[in-house]
Amino acid sequence: MAQTFRSRRRQEPEPVRIDLNGVFASTIGAASGIREGELGTLRPRLAAAIETLQSERAQGLHPFLDLPQDRDALGEMLSLVQQLREDVDHLVVLGIGGSARGARALAAALDGAPRRKHRDAPELIVADNIDPASFARLLDELDLSRTVFSVVSKSGETSETMAQFLIVRERLLRELGAMDYVKHILVTTDADAGSLRQIVNDEGFPSTAFPGGVSGRFSALSSVHLLPVALLGIDVEEILDGAAAMDERCRERDPEKNPAALLAGVRYLLDVLHGVPTAVLMPYCDRLAPLADWWCQLWAESLGKRVERDGGRLSIGQTPVRAIGAADQHSQMQLYLDGPADKVVTFVRVADAGVQLEIPRSYPDLEDVAYLGGHGLGDLLVMEQRAMELALNKRGRPTIAIEMPHLTPFTIGQLVYLMEVETTLVAALFGIDPFNQPAVEEGKRLTFGLAGKPGYEDERGEIERWLAAKLPERVV
Amino acid sequence: MAQTFRSRRRQEPEPVRIDLNGVFASTIGAASGIREGELGTLRPRLAAAIETLQSERAQGLHPFLDLPQDRDALGEMLSLVQQLREDVDHLVVLGIGGSARGARALAAALDGAPRRKHRDAPELIVADNIDPASFARLLDELDLSRTVFSVVSKSGETSETMAQFLIVRERLLRELGAMDYVKHILVTTDADAGSLRQIVNDEGFPSTAFPGGVSGRFSALSSVHLLPVALLGIDVEEILDGAAAMDERCRERDPEKNPAALLAGVRYLLDVLHGVPTAVLMPYCDRLAPLADWWCQLWAESLGKRVERDGGRLSIGQTPVRAIGAADQHSQMQLYLDGPADKVVTFVRVADAGVQLEIPRSYPDLEDVAYLGGHGLGDLLVMEQRAMELALNKRGRPTIAIEMPHLTPFTIGQLVYLMEVETTLVAALFGIDPFNQPAVEEGKRLTFGLAGKPGYEDERGEIERWLAAKLPERVV
Repeated sequence: MAQTFRSRRRQEPEPVRIDLNGVFASTIGAASGIREGELGTLRPRLAAAIETLQSERAQGLHPFLDLPQDRDALGEMLSLVQQLREDVDHLVVLGIGGSARGARALAAALDGAPRRKHRDAPELIVADNIDPASFARLLDELDLSRTVFSVVSKSGETSETMAQFLIVRERLLRELGAMDYVKHILVTTDADAGSLRQIVNDEGFPSTAFPGGVSGRFSALSSVHLLPVALLGIDVEEILDGAAAMDERCRERDPEKNPAALLAGVRYLLDVLHGVPTAVLMPYCDRLAPLADWWCQLWAESLGKRVERDGGRLSIGQTPVRAIGAADQHSQMQLYLDGPADKVVTFVRVADAGVQLEIPRSYPDLEDVAYLGGHGLGDLLVMEQRAMELALNKRGRPTIAIEMPHLTPFTIGQLVYLMEVETTLVAALFGIDPFNQPAVEEGKRLTFGLAGKPGYEDERGEIERWLAAKLPERVV
Repeated sequence: MAQTFRSRRRQEPEPVRIDLNGVFASTIGAASGIREGELGTLRPRLAAAIETLQSERAQGLHPFLDLPQDRDALGEMLSLVQQLREDVDHLVVLGIGGSARGARALAAALDGAPRRKHRDAPELIVADNIDPASFARLLDELDLSRTVFSVVSKSGETSETMAQFLIVRERLLRELGAMDYVKHILVTTDADAGSLRQIVNDEGFPSTAFPGGVSGRFSALSSVHLLPVALLGIDVEEILDGAAAMDERCRERDPEKNPAALLAGVRYLLDVLHGVPTAVLMPYCDRLAPLADWWCQLWAESLGKRVERDGGRLSIGQTPVRAIGAADQHSQMQLYLDGPADKVVTFVRVADAGVQLEIPRSYPDLEDVAYLGGHGLGDLLVMEQRAMELALNKRGRPTIAIEMPHLTPFTIGQLVYLMEVETTLVAALFGIDPFNQPAVEEGKRLTFGLAGKPGYEDERGEIERWLAAKLPERVV
């Protein structure tokens, strides 16, 4: 398959390009702009980070990096997809965080099918929360006999996902009976651990393995997310082809030629030397909104860490913020322009949206309207993005512009892989582990305490004392 | 109507409560916690801000504050709604920013109707972007003969909205003919200004006036947003009743008893004295996600300002961030707990989601699952919120918890009004105008230049020089 791709893609490569002009002092001034020398000084560290990452990868330490090439199981997955396409109207992913966002991001970016009419593929629904109102409404609307629930939990113990699973399992048992309910649940979990694996073994649910050694938020290019995406009729091999093409660029040892390293270096310098603790990702494209949500998790959970340094504790991590152009120009841009100079705005621009809607020249004599006539709606969107980029730069505020020639599986694959490698390299510069999330454990323990899980009586006591100590006069 | 409300609501008031325990030094420690004395020192300034706001209001300066009582036009609006309910399947709002988010927030929070099946009300679609792919798909899916487009632009010149209008007008003309197209567009714009008003006068589109003196982002409780919400069958008078009830509390001159003033004071102190430049709003409720988006605009555009102070320039404004619980526990919480201590997290907790989904006790012997059995899904959601609040407080990180007893028009009306008054009072503490957005003008001028609007040739030249000056070696 890689062979097919290579011959095809070499003729029409469509690389994603990253414009870094907007972060340099020569463009935006010395107050927040990066000086060439700063990047030069960082260069050896960046080169070492690339080297370490790739040599650890060669030792099998970072299997997420090899997902674009890892196509052995693809054939089996695609035949499962073929069967699902015949049997189901809805695939509902029950998962949260890294078990949900990759599929949603890829599907939203690439699903060209209309929402309702003339739809010949099943619909994908990602249920990544336990709000009882929305979950009850969802279950009421589905024809369960034409629905498969894909339960995704790496640990097999995620409380939200397990709660959803328990509710769905009972509903399927009741409505479809003990013979059939098993066929309507597909489980993805770690190969050999967790209660969910035991349940699968006992009851015989169809199951697939969560890829070994891949953290949830770095699993977007694995079958966990590609299966539901393939179900929509999206060419997942092209996604992997795009990721593989970006992988080639990100293996480049010279940081100046490696897009992930350059991006990592630039954002690291902005954070550490230029007082920019906030990273905005602002696609000018509705379909990329869920991809921005996926990135917000990737960035926040991988880089938001507390480390021991020189005998003290240091908290690091830029805050990721999602904005959508042009809509958020009328919401956030006032703050980005006039508020504190603490943000780098990364635009994602789609050069050709694939659809042209020409604005008609209906009122040639009304000057506040006439200038719009004859432009394409997509051209107007690109003009607005350019205008915002310049407006920010003029105020000395750093911007990055990622240009997607089109929104295709091939370009999306590049973007996802780029962001994963960039995040990993930023972690290397900070000397932190991007793959763990130690802080969330405490919240889990406290929830266990409140829910009465045996062994968490201390946590229950702690939370009850804290609730009792709240001063009523501070509740207004 | 107010009379009916008063007698009914006095029996069942359902006030929204704000728990401020989590911001005080006595709970979270002195590093980031507010000391009683700090709030005491601010008290006279807060009292003065309340006094000024209410006396300016009495002079007619802040008509947005009177929207809950301003029900003269309600009867007319509701009969228009009645007619629309019979004639249309879809109402599509064409607007952006403050012309769009209020309706979307209220509708999402309160529309209990199923998304598709058995729907007896028209569907509301808010099209607040000019992405050609999503706009083309939307237009292709609609039955135009059963659709009304509500064009909302206060200035009557908003480029995105006017572009949408031009495309839709031509499509309606083509498909429905010159006799009928006029009936499918409803225009809301300033009473006496703008090209859109002139078009309305010339062509005879039905129209309503954007309320005078009300800025878009403070217009959520006006007919601009209540009309589409009423169309869904939501009781908009109860929304206004809730807002009126909150108004009574926010007129209170003693800041300690005024929820908006307390919130404003607390967030101001966190920003100015405790190094907290980021304000997270984290509802534990899917239906409140669009309300959080509405608030992000309210906060960012009202408070993100540059001011002249002591001969220099000062940039102010906390960055608003939307998070949704419990989903974002698996995305952002690691950063909030371990990353920089630069955030205040405001939770919104719905005590009773109105739907109970009990988690079945399916596996009593599997301890990683058994503890979930017997709890309601909504109870689990509330437990998780409590656990996160305590986890943050234990790390010295400030939290605020807004408790909604139920999600009803009455409680949502309270919340919206509370947030509007709070924002206005924070602006007063900073000495800034919350109702303007001067910085976005430059971006508009640059867009005009690129689009070739006469009179903006200088801007066109500027943006072309900037594009030409980009160094190709900084594009990777």
